[in-house]
Amino acid sequence: MKKLLPFLLLLFIGCSNNRQGKDEGQHKIIPDKKVVLEGLNHPWSIAFLTETDALISEKDGDLIRVDLNSKSRQILKGFPDDLTDSIRAIHFGDNSGIFEVLVDPEFEKNSWIYFSYAAKKEGQGTTTKVVRAKLAKDSLYDHQTLLEAAPFTKEYFHYGGGMVFGGDGKLYITIGERLFWERDEPEIPIAQDVTDKRGKIYRLNPDGSVPDDNPDFGHKAVPGVYAMGIRAAQGITVQPETNKIWFSEHGTIQGDEINLLKAGANYGWPNVTSGRLRSSDYTPPKLEGVSFTAPIWFWPHTVAPTGLTFYTGDEFPHWKNDLIVPGLSRGSLWRFHISEDTIKSVEELFIDDRIRIRKARQSPDGKLYLLTDEDNGKLIQIIPKNIKSQL
Amino acid sequence: MKKLLPFLLLLFIGCSNNRQGKDEGQHKIIPDKKVVLEGLNHPWSIAFLTETDALISEKDGDLIRVDLNSKSRQILKGFPDDLTDSIRAIHFGDNSGIFEVLVDPEFEKNSWIYFSYAAKKEGQGTTTKVVRAKLAKDSLYDHQTLLEAAPFTKEYFHYGGGMVFGGDGKLYITIGERLFWERDEPEIPIAQDVTDKRGKIYRLNPDGSVPDDNPDFGHKAVPGVYAMGIRAAQGITVQPETNKIWFSEHGTIQGDEINLLKAGANYGWPNVTSGRLRSSDYTPPKLEGVSFTAPIWFWPHTVAPTGLTFYTGDEFPHWKNDLIVPGLSRGSLWRFHISEDTIKSVEELFIDDRIRIRKARQSPDGKLYLLTDEDNGKLIQIIPKNIKSQL
Repeated sequence: MKKLLPFLLLLFIGCSNNRQGKDEGQHKIIPDKKVVLEGLNHPWSIAFLTETDALISEKDGDLIRVDLNSKSRQILKGFPDDLTDSIRAIHFGDNSGIFEVLVDPEFEKNSWIYFSYAAKKEGQGTTTKVVRAKLAKDSLYDHQTLLEAAPFTKEYFHYGGGMVFGGDGKLYITIGERLFWERDEPEIPIAQDVTDKRGKIYRLNPDGSVPDDNPDFGHKAVPGVYAMGIRAAQGITVQPETNKIWFSEHGTIQGDEINLLKAGANYGWPNVTSGRLRSSDYTPPKLEGVSFTAPIWFWPHTVAPTGLTFYTGDEFPHWKNDLIVPGLSRGSLWRFHISEDTIKSVEELFIDDRIRIRKARQSPDGKLYLLTDEDNGKLIQIIPKNIKSQL
Repeated sequence: MKKLLPFLLLLFIGCSNNRQGKDEGQHKIIPDKKVVLEGLNHPWSIAFLTETDALISEKDGDLIRVDLNSKSRQILKGFPDDLTDSIRAIHFGDNSGIFEVLVDPEFEKNSWIYFSYAAKKEGQGTTTKVVRAKLAKDSLYDHQTLLEAAPFTKEYFHYGGGMVFGGDGKLYITIGERLFWERDEPEIPIAQDVTDKRGKIYRLNPDGSVPDDNPDFGHKAVPGVYAMGIRAAQGITVQPETNKIWFSEHGTIQGDEINLLKAGANYGWPNVTSGRLRSSDYTPPKLEGVSFTAPIWFWPHTVAPTGLTFYTGDEFPHWKNDLIVPGLSRGSLWRFHISEDTIKSVEELFIDDRIRIRKARQSPDGKLYLLTDEDNGKLIQIIPKNIKSQL
């Protein structure tokens, strides 16, 4: 016992020093980038089956399954054969391709995965389509169409296609209005027309049926609509703790926004926008008895915000529960601190290291990843770097 | 001994738990505001004598000494009597008044304080003047003029007046070009004219004499000039560890910048600007053999950046060595993470709680304070708030 005492006392003193170390304060953590995969063909989305086994949708390529350790990749067999051929217009980027991929929250039990893409119909054109299928190894089977946003048109813009499972187990889907020029709007603008499938956000059961508790847009409305007045929204994500849903939207000339999703809301396009219209010769018709929901945030310049996500990992403690928003046009990455539905602070990261980013997504263990929109597209992990002095 | 053992073992177990707590990671710290003083008349600068004893310059009021505990304040007697009367123009804010106040790095020994202000000369107008005086309690004596940026003119804009002691013990001073309309520039623009005192940054010995190792602008140049091509710079500060000096500058229409100060540099005004000129009918003359130094950062919109400072305190570990930049026009507060003279990330704080801010400054113990540019001006302390869940 006596022999133990000095040892125990030393341990105690050692402990005290550690506690002092803890009280001395935290250290500065800086984000750095680590390329995990490359050679991805304009990747749009990633869905994790495990920490290292994931599905990646390549907008201009395939739906693939990757192993983040071995870097191996397999193209999934059985992708629907109505995926449009991607036609690169000379002056404008063709938005067509494969968009979101999600894994069912109960994938272990039911094997369902969900994906959105630009589907074609011969002689008519394309539109946004949402399908689910079961996944076994590298094969898809038992396909079910959940949503097809007819009409099929010759336009190849603004498909939307963002999808997320809400905290309520429902599937939320964004469908863009599918127009390039506002002057091509019909008399009642597409996104303002409850009988038109386009320009809407949907809330569906995982099997594509309509939940009983969806908002009521009237008997003429397209079934499943949850919100309207959407131009082109790709990013949609669930906020931790509140389960509120936030989505990003592209304006035409500026007008890029962050919105809070509310049942039955009308987000105003094209009647109101925080930016400007492309067609100076277009004036939206006056709509009676309509109230529009303003964005929580918009940028005064174009950033083209896309696949946003809330950060809940442990590697960046001071980012906890913040909203991470990637952008295409300026290669931006933003971090929003939100409290009570209000933006409190906004940080732009990697200012000197810009790259077109399509998606920010966490792995099951809370590691933060980005997908870049490039011919040689990359999966990049954001890793913490402790620094003492970085000047 | 046997009786002690369980106790020591419990302590050890307790310690282990604490160590686990430390390894569990850091917690999120959010900045909050605490008003320490109010009723300040458009305060411009604060200089700390101790943690709680400080001098505050009120642009539209007086040079005062305050006690941050008792909140008492005394107007310093003996302020120079050539302080201009502040004439509030009807449409534009009069920039005149008292600007910077600094305490000598060796104040304890020599009692010197330094201040800049808009001085008047009867029948001529105003200009920027820098004076030092000794301080005893609430009285100034032994005044010495260090710099007077003649000519005195009828213009009441763009005095500059920002000052800081460098790591080299020298006094750095910004003097604005004193014009409102670019079309009023003389043939050689003021800031480009080495024989003109205005539109320059100076480096002087504390007694106002010129250091031997200043850059050489030629024999015609105004003594003490360190850099030129300055329109209107108020904020100037020293970077920890590197001792590099950074300053903010106001552009005309946009063109607000953060610059890195370099000996002999020409910051380009009015020949180059990241914004636009006010006078569409003015074209700067072509200058031969001149090379301009670009800003490290500029904003695409007006923020009116002013009294910036580097943060070296312990309350916000993840802000360590970052540059804090307040702005007037949009009530902004920015935090720049800089590494190797490059902006890596930029965060805008207090997005939903904007107030015109003139100065950010640390107390000797590293607490962060702001001065607001208001009739009921405030000294605000930025305090850390630990949060578990803030949604």
